Amino acid sequence: MPVTIEDVASAANVSVTTVSHVFSGKRPVSEATKARVRDAARRLGYRPSAIAQSLRVQRTDTVMIILPDITNPFYPDFARGAQDVLRAAGYHSLLGNTDGLAAEELRFLEEAYSRRVDGVIFMGFRLASDELLTFTEAGLALVTVGPSLPGKLVDSVRFDDEAGARRAVEYLLSTHESVAFISGEQDAPVSVSRRAGYDAALRAAGRRTPDGYVVAADFTRVGGRAGMRELLAHPVPPTAVFCANDLVAMGALDVLKERGLRVPEDVAIVGCDDIELASVVTPKLTTVRHPAAELGRQAAALLVSRMSKDFNGSGREVVIGTELILRESA
Amino acid sequence: MPVTIEDVASAANVSVTTVSHVFSGKRPVSEATKARVRDAARRLGYRPSAIAQSLRVQRTDTVMIILPDITNPFYPDFARGAQDVLRAAGYHSLLGNTDGLAAEELRFLEEAYSRRVDGVIFMGFRLASDELLTFTEAGLALVTVGPSLPGKLVDSVRFDDEAGARRAVEYLLSTHESVAFISGEQDAPVSVSRRAGYDAALRAAGRRTPDGYVVAADFTRVGGRAGMRELLAHPVPPTAVFCANDLVAMGALDVLKERGLRVPEDVAIVGCDDIELASVVTPKLTTVRHPAAELGRQAAALLVSRMSKDFNGSGREVVIGTELILRESA
Repeated sequence: MPVTIEDVASAANVSVTTVSHVFSGKRPVSEATKARVRDAARRLGYRPSAIAQSLRVQRTDTVMIILPDITNPFYPDFARGAQDVLRAAGYHSLLGNTDGLAAEELRFLEEAYSRRVDGVIFMGFRLASDELLTFTEAGLALVTVGPSLPGKLVDSVRFDDEAGARRAVEYLLSTHESVAFISGEQDAPVSVSRRAGYDAALRAAGRRTPDGYVVAADFTRVGGRAGMRELLAHPVPPTAVFCANDLVAMGALDVLKERGLRVPEDVAIVGCDDIELASVVTPKLTTVRHPAAELGRQAAALLVSRMSKDFNGSGREVVIGTELILRESA
Repeated sequence: MPVTIEDVASAANVSVTTVSHVFSGKRPVSEATKARVRDAARRLGYRPSAIAQSLRVQRTDTVMIILPDITNPFYPDFARGAQDVLRAAGYHSLLGNTDGLAAEELRFLEEAYSRRVDGVIFMGFRLASDELLTFTEAGLALVTVGPSLPGKLVDSVRFDDEAGARRAVEYLLSTHESVAFISGEQDAPVSVSRRAGYDAALRAAGRRTPDGYVVAADFTRVGGRAGMRELLAHPVPPTAVFCANDLVAMGALDVLKERGLRVPEDVAIVGCDDIELASVVTPKLTTVRHPAAELGRQAAALLVSRMSKDFNGSGREVVIGTELILRESA
């Protein structure tokens, strides 16, 4: 009969849980108790199963979710959706907030790699794809949010940003001569695809945009204020503005209110995301809905299947459609 | 002359960074390169400094911030404040979202302990203090948000919740005969101290509350809706309601709007926290301001000093004052 963990617990006069903590190192146990458990184990010839130990080393049942800005409600909603799927599949998740900094993105990936988490959901703006691929080649299961990466080692999820932006701008062009765009940081992938949608809508309608109608801001309310001020300083200020996200749109509304301009009568505003604030602000925001929690659930579902022992598939891409929610601001 | 890392790099024909990654395990390096670097190191008799390695094992420069609900904007703001201080002090931080579950709170603490993070900022509702103390006795640096814990191993930060609640209820009592309270989960420490402030204000004014004027809800907008519906079903519905937080107050507003009741004319509402939504919703919320980012900064400052090698102080407690922000809802 092999010696069991129960034998050790009863010989050391402690609970089975305590014995398990001594060998896993998962929870603190007093030095005296540790010594007593180890003594008993040695005396009885008990060794924690080598197979169980090696499994434990290889799998941590932990996932890291790397996000650019937790103070933008879009990302907590995304994380929440992902966590619901991960928890149901038995995974625990850690969150990393990069503030959109390349150094932080890299640091979290290093952390995920060196701490041997089982997988990563990565929503980053800065890291080049070959840097990401270094980690996947080393065995880290990875799902990115944004443009898909080459090869079969990474899955990706994203919204159909280009179509969403195009739809919003087409809607504005139906009642306005031209439309300005307060873009997010210009090199961010979502900015590139939303810009493509903006350009496509103008092209399709045969309209030309005055120079200076596309301004870059960061993706925050403060950024939106700066962008709107810049547009109002234009020789021919726009009567319709498409905004990179709802926080940017909120910032634009702040400035228009300050200047005594009416929305939508003087300037129409459309946002992106449909965060809770969008339906609470006055006037309520017309916006391109990006269901954040759904994106999170899809990312987590891809990661769970990729982390499974027998996964042997290619890189997959999930693209989620968007819809234009008409409210009061345009 | 001792062999340096530069000698190994040049012998193996790789960069110093690559040699460092081979020995730290921090970033992936191809098996072929690893073998070349290890060969060169062996040939030259190079060993990474034992002191540097042991320091690396003992300190990870990583902190874990454990939060109850990242979809409540209060907590991301808190985390953001903490991260600003931690980053300036050279610490990296991981976030854990517990959804207010005791099992998750414990799991994150275990994770922090077994992954050897240097310290934890813990904002939990569920875990008994003796469970927390197990970890601090094992050497984990800990700062809790909420009531202070006994002994010298933990620091704590909190708002003066009781005074804030008392001030809000006194304000409502100046124009209303009585005040109802939609409390958060009743066993949460903040609910206990806000209830104490509510009771103190009523006592001081010599008022009695009808039975059924204190209802418990969870700390969400959905919880606020349920709480407000319960109050409106009371034989003598209240004309003034103090709410556990701003999300709860938003939920109360939703129900009052549905029922065609005017705020503040028919029912006055006061919230807690002053999240961004509070000043955006119509009517704008009168609320007890809890500066979340400041709380985070204070928690991080305590943790940074506690993690310093020569820290030898007692348990400290920082209590942050609150103020009543008068807007439109009361």
